[in-house]
Amino acid sequence: VIGTSLGLALTARGVSREAVVFEPEAEAREQIARRGLAAVDRLDSLPPDPDAVWLAAPPAAIERLLPEVARRAPRALVTDTASVKRSILEAAARVRRQAPAFLFVGSHPMAGSERSGAAAAAADLFLGSPVAICRLPGVPEAAAAQVARAWQLAGGVPLSLTAEEHDAAVALTSHLPQLAASALAAFVARRAIPESYEEAFLGPGFRDTTRLAGSSPSLWAEILQRNEDHVRPLLEALARDLAAWAGPSPAGSWEERLAEGRRFRRRLEGE
Amino acid sequence: VIGTSLGLALTARGVSREAVVFEPEAEAREQIARRGLAAVDRLDSLPPDPDAVWLAAPPAAIERLLPEVARRAPRALVTDTASVKRSILEAAARVRRQAPAFLFVGSHPMAGSERSGAAAAAADLFLGSPVAICRLPGVPEAAAAQVARAWQLAGGVPLSLTAEEHDAAVALTSHLPQLAASALAAFVARRAIPESYEEAFLGPGFRDTTRLAGSSPSLWAEILQRNEDHVRPLLEALARDLAAWAGPSPAGSWEERLAEGRRFRRRLEGE
Repeated sequence: VIGTSLGLALTARGVSREAVVFEPEAEAREQIARRGLAAVDRLDSLPPDPDAVWLAAPPAAIERLLPEVARRAPRALVTDTASVKRSILEAAARVRRQAPAFLFVGSHPMAGSERSGAAAAAADLFLGSPVAICRLPGVPEAAAAQVARAWQLAGGVPLSLTAEEHDAAVALTSHLPQLAASALAAFVARRAIPESYEEAFLGPGFRDTTRLAGSSPSLWAEILQRNEDHVRPLLEALARDLAAWAGPSPAGSWEERLAEGRRFRRRLEGE
Repeated sequence: VIGTSLGLALTARGVSREAVVFEPEAEAREQIARRGLAAVDRLDSLPPDPDAVWLAAPPAAIERLLPEVARRAPRALVTDTASVKRSILEAAARVRRQAPAFLFVGSHPMAGSERSGAAAAAADLFLGSPVAICRLPGVPEAAAAQVARAWQLAGGVPLSLTAEEHDAAVALTSHLPQLAASALAAFVARRAIPESYEEAFLGPGFRDTTRLAGSSPSLWAEILQRNEDHVRPLLEALARDLAAWAGPSPAGSWEERLAEGRRFRRRLEGE
C-alpha cells in the first residue's frame, strides 16, 4: 500500500518521469499493474542508473537490500519508509563505509491504511501526513532537503529529527499503543466468555481499543525487535501503572485517574 | 442521549402513548423539548400512575431514585439503563422488601454515542444493539418479557442473563478496555514528547486505542466502584501480562504474542 501509493503520488505530482516498482510476488505485481504502474520481478529488470530509489518494505528487507541498492544505483538518492529509523540508518552507515558516495536519507511517512497491498493504494494516501526525515550523519543536508521536498510534493508534511529522537517518540506514541491493543486482545481471547454473549459484549469500545491488534504480527515483530531498548522500559512502566490502578485506593481515585486521561484526550482533540 | 433516544424510539414505535422526561437541568430540558418530548423539572410534575418508568441516569442516581419511584408509581413496570447490574438489582431488592409488589427488571442497552445529551439523541440509537435484561429474583418472568419486548420494539436485541453474569462479562469486555485506554492516555500525558512532535506522532492508531479515555470520569468512577471485585483481578492480570511482555523473551515471541491478539480480532471481524 505504501510503495504503490508513493509511485502513484510521485507520478501524479510530476516528481517522477518514470516510476518502476520491484515486487517479487506475481499477484502483487498484477495489482500494481492494474493501478497503472510498471512492476518488475527482478532487480535486474529495473531501469539502470535511477535518480532515486524508495524502499517501501519491512525493516529487515530494507536492511538486506541496502548494499545491493548501493551497488546497482550508486548515483541514486535512496530513502525508505520503515517505522523504525536507527537500525535502518545503522545499516546504511555500514554501506557508506564501503561506498562513501552512497546517499541515504531515512523517511517514515506516518500515514497508513488498515488495508495492505496495491489494491488499497491511493495517490492521496500521504495528504497531510507527517513524514519523519532522518538524515544519516555525513550525508549532505541538500540530500535530506531533496527527500523532504519530494515527500512534500507527494502531499506529506516533512519533520526533521534524529533517528534516536524518532525511535523514542514512536516507542511511546505508536509501539506502546500497538502492544497495549495486542495484549488486551490476547487477554480477552484467553478468558472465554460464553460465545453467545461475545458479539453482544464486544462492542465498538472494545473494537476501537484493540483495532491495532489486527496489524501484521511478522512486520510488527521486526519493528519491535529493532526498538526494544525504548519499548521495554515503557511497557514495564505501563504495567506498573495498571498494577497500581488495580491495588487498593482511596475513594475517588478512579475518577482522578480517568480525569487525567481525559484531559490529555481533550487537549489532543483541541477541545 | 440514552433517555431521550429511548423516549423518541418508544414513541415512534407506538410503545408509548405519552412519554414525559424528568430532567432537573434547565438546559437539558430545553434540548429534550426541542426533540419533541415533554420534559418536567420535578418528579411531582410527572403524569400520575404511569405504566412504565425508565431510569436513564448514572448508577448512583438510579439507586437513589428507586425508593421514590416505588412510592410514586407503585403499579409501574420499572427498568433502568445502567452499565452495571448487581448494585442496581440489590437496591431494587431492598425496595421490594418494603414494597413486595414493586416490579423492577434491570436493563443495559449496549448502545451509546461518544456524544451525550438530548441533542445527540436518535430514535434509531438502539437499532441492532444488544440489551442485557437482568430479572430481579422474585419478579415474575412476564415482567422481564415485557421489558424485553419494549426494547425489541425500540430496535434492540434483548439477551437474558443474571446480574452476576452481566457484571463479569462487562468487566472483561468494557470496563477493562476503558481502564486500559485511560491508563495509556494518562501514561503518554505524563511523558512529554516535544510539543511540536505531538500532533505528528499521535496518529490514528493512538487516537483509536485511547478513544474511550474521553468518557466521563465521574460516571465511570461510579460504574467501576460498583464492579471492583470483577475489575481489579482482571486489571492485575493484564498488568502481569504486560510486565511479562516487557521481560526478556526468546526470539520470535513478539510475533507469537501479536499473532494471538490478531487471531482473536480476525475471528471477531468474521474474517
